[in-house]
Amino acid sequence: MQHLSSPNHVEQHICLSGDRPTGPLHLGHYVGSLRQRLALQQRFPLYVMIADLQGLTDNGSRPQKVADNILQVMADYLAVGIDPQRATLCLQSALPALAELTMLYMNIVSVARVARNPTVKTEIAQKGFAHSLPAGFLLYPISQAADITAFCADRIPVGDDQLPMLEQTNEIVQRMNALLPQPVLRPCQAILSQVGRLPGIDGNAKMSKSLGNALPLSADPAQIRAAVHAMYTDPAHLRVSDPGRVEGNVVFTYLDAFHPSADRVAEMKAHYRRGGLGDSQCKRELEACLQTLLAPIRQRRAELLADRAQLLQILQAGSERAREVSQQTLVAIKRGLGLPLMY
Amino acid sequence: MQHLSSPNHVEQHICLSGDRPTGPLHLGHYVGSLRQRLALQQRFPLYVMIADLQGLTDNGSRPQKVADNILQVMADYLAVGIDPQRATLCLQSALPALAELTMLYMNIVSVARVARNPTVKTEIAQKGFAHSLPAGFLLYPISQAADITAFCADRIPVGDDQLPMLEQTNEIVQRMNALLPQPVLRPCQAILSQVGRLPGIDGNAKMSKSLGNALPLSADPAQIRAAVHAMYTDPAHLRVSDPGRVEGNVVFTYLDAFHPSADRVAEMKAHYRRGGLGDSQCKRELEACLQTLLAPIRQRRAELLADRAQLLQILQAGSERAREVSQQTLVAIKRGLGLPLMY
Repeated sequence: MQHLSSPNHVEQHICLSGDRPTGPLHLGHYVGSLRQRLALQQRFPLYVMIADLQGLTDNGSRPQKVADNILQVMADYLAVGIDPQRATLCLQSALPALAELTMLYMNIVSVARVARNPTVKTEIAQKGFAHSLPAGFLLYPISQAADITAFCADRIPVGDDQLPMLEQTNEIVQRMNALLPQPVLRPCQAILSQVGRLPGIDGNAKMSKSLGNALPLSADPAQIRAAVHAMYTDPAHLRVSDPGRVEGNVVFTYLDAFHPSADRVAEMKAHYRRGGLGDSQCKRELEACLQTLLAPIRQRRAELLADRAQLLQILQAGSERAREVSQQTLVAIKRGLGLPLMY
Repeated sequence: MQHLSSPNHVEQHICLSGDRPTGPLHLGHYVGSLRQRLALQQRFPLYVMIADLQGLTDNGSRPQKVADNILQVMADYLAVGIDPQRATLCLQSALPALAELTMLYMNIVSVARVARNPTVKTEIAQKGFAHSLPAGFLLYPISQAADITAFCADRIPVGDDQLPMLEQTNEIVQRMNALLPQPVLRPCQAILSQVGRLPGIDGNAKMSKSLGNALPLSADPAQIRAAVHAMYTDPAHLRVSDPGRVEGNVVFTYLDAFHPSADRVAEMKAHYRRGGLGDSQCKRELEACLQTLLAPIRQRRAELLADRAQLLQILQAGSERAREVSQQTLVAIKRGLGLPLMY
């Protein structure tokens, strides 16, 4: 859109990111999204949403699990350095406009369309739903479209497995805008993470609490030590003097992710490949990096969780800002659809 | 529940009723529900909801059709005598708690369960959805459960085709209550209408605007005359002197529904059966009844629609009361699930 009054005006990008509060966050989240958000909050308006409603879509009968982790995730956010003065930290269930937009969007998306969303199909298979698939889970891409559009977010940091979600969102954007006298919703695009997904300490492609291969941000020194000790390396690297493989070697993947000096890691890789660098030496160095990284996070986390009222207050303040913005989107949509505005 | 402090305390019944605003209401609504509500509003707290969100579930791409009919239905309500001092007239889309409760209930109902709801299955077949079934339409029984439970309604006036909806609601009530430290939601039961469904003027079992066999409450004298004139009678009743059949004879069905004197109708039926009572005489008498019934309704409707701001104001006032009650239910559910209360 051309703004005649300000020809140099560039529409500001807005980012939305978030997590389902189904457990405290771990190193996989740190590498996959948290670290990126620290950069994003410097550049863009950033909403960071604790998606408790989405967490309930496959925990409908375990609400406590979701409720209990809301402040855990808040502590994780603040402990790693997400700054409530820059980013808007908000709670999904505290934003009624998101539910209302979901209800409106549900009418312009067919069941067949959500059922063939590849991300959801994969997740349904992974979670072993069959006959018991909760309605909310099948429809969560529609709810996610509500989240994104409510904040006018147009830049969404995601992994490439989440691209079908953004495609679904943009279909809804297009369809809804076509029903309105003038477009209200903003299409979005992905900010793809440049770093790959951090594997579990067992080498499994996915780090996850439920797989038991995750290192939480709250890990104490002994847990960190044990995790690094248990980490998979090159099974063919039997003696220190043997040449070893770096590719697929979890310790090196982690060194790539966490060592502050890329040069040092390159040097270690070369040494390991030609033989003479032992796994235990690599692990000692990795452990030092992780201990250094996690010690202040662990401490801030503990301090933050000692004052839950304050955490709630920060979440409330952010949710209030988010409520205002999401409400504006809802009002614009309702007005465009011709529905009376009554509150 | 036994109230020790007031052993004679009887929990008050609460009714919820409503319509999808997809067209002005007609005589079928008058006989099937409106007349009953006039009686109910004398006995119980009664919520009468204009279900615009539900109207959108199969009009997602025709929002104007729904929006335009909200005040038409309001005018119908007030014109027939629903009293905003007694009943709470409210608008579904003005009650965010309904959308929020729907989101929560969606997680405890499986897709398979809603898909086998007999009412929804029949409607899906009737409407010819197939691949294009909107997600919102499949899930509207869940949204309806939110409506009912939000108002603590335990007596729902419905036709027997709607019983599966109440069964679905009670399943949700039971499942949600079981997740909470103490029950919050109230189970409901049907108030089944004692009168059958009014057929269309063509004898079709269903009167419906889209079938072109309906007489709207706004009908002018000429429309009423034409509708009665076009009404099906006994096709074997060729001469006035012939004996005629009363059963399945639309004119007599309408006389049963609208003639103020049951004795006079019984007399006419006997006369018609033995022969000597002409169809045109019966129709004249029916027409007089309908003209008498509809004249004041038509006039009040026109007056009401001449002041749309006032109609909106009445709807707004009722919606505010309804919002307070529905919000209380939502808060109790959220508290029970352990979710933070942030607004």
